[in-house]
Amino acid sequence: MGGRLFIICAAALLAGGCFKDQRRDDTDKSALEIRQLIDRWTKAFEAKDLDGVMAYYAPGDRLDSYDIVPPLQYKGAAAYRKDYAEFFKQFNGPIHVDERDVDIEADNNVAFAHGLERLTGTSTDGKPVDTWLRWTSGYRKIGGRWYALHDHVSVPVDLATGKALLDLKP
Amino acid sequence: MGGRLFIICAAALLAGGCFKDQRRDDTDKSALEIRQLIDRWTKAFEAKDLDGVMAYYAPGDRLDSYDIVPPLQYKGAAAYRKDYAEFFKQFNGPIHVDERDVDIEADNNVAFAHGLERLTGTSTDGKPVDTWLRWTSGYRKIGGRWYALHDHVSVPVDLATGKALLDLKP
Repeated sequence: MGGRLFIICAAALLAGGCFKDQRRDDTDKSALEIRQLIDRWTKAFEAKDLDGVMAYYAPGDRLDSYDIVPPLQYKGAAAYRKDYAEFFKQFNGPIHVDERDVDIEADNNVAFAHGLERLTGTSTDGKPVDTWLRWTSGYRKIGGRWYALHDHVSVPVDLATGKALLDLKP
Repeated sequence: MGGRLFIICAAALLAGGCFKDQRRDDTDKSALEIRQLIDRWTKAFEAKDLDGVMAYYAPGDRLDSYDIVPPLQYKGAAAYRKDYAEFFKQFNGPIHVDERDVDIEADNNVAFAHGLERLTGTSTDGKPVDTWLRWTSGYRKIGGRWYALHDHVSVPVDLATGKALLDLKP
């Protein structure tokens, strides 16, 4: 009996160890999957590929986004898709994105990421665009893959003058 | 042998079931703990209690925040504390906060939340302040309690005029 109990305990400890390693591996895997999702968004955004960009976000009503432009919030994927379409229309040719200080915090089913992003390109009236933005995304794993449920994009503002600060550098 | 195997399998299934329920309970518990953290922040903010406000955030260097005012990012708790102190100095008396459309997505160790927030009060030059902001926070459980590792606060801007939109309503 003593021997059998030892074997059961050893098996339980081993299983506990396996679960523990499995969890850490899952978290690392989550962060890698989020990194890949961000990279796919970046490629699609630079190419002004609306379907590719929207693949980053949860379809339907669960998405709730705060963009650099009004209104205060975009509820649902359809509203945010329209916002992206408007944004892309303001550029001649592709947009270039540089990422800086990206941080990803991921658990098994919930994650968030944020970073600074420099957008460069040419507007449809021929003017150069060169602006650093701040972005944050919140994600949930749904049906085995990650989707952004939330997006927040902004620039700081000067409260004394009411001016948006579009020329700050990190 | 068959009977013993059945008992072991039944025990394993039961343990699996327990783990599963435990996980769901933990996730609900996480969301509740985040809700309490937000409520404590709100009370401290309304009272302009700097220590109370900073208890929301991870101490040290892990905090990386994007505030409504420049610079693009505040690295570390000390820099963000200074930013809060500057903000509080601009108000006469307490600040009132109304929350709207708050969403919390929580796993066991990582969570994020976002919402709209109306700030009302009186500035030190006697003018009424009444502005809706968007906020997002990202959290991690460290040593058994939740801390915000990331904060993003903003208003939308009108890119055509370069104006910050401080009078939008949801």
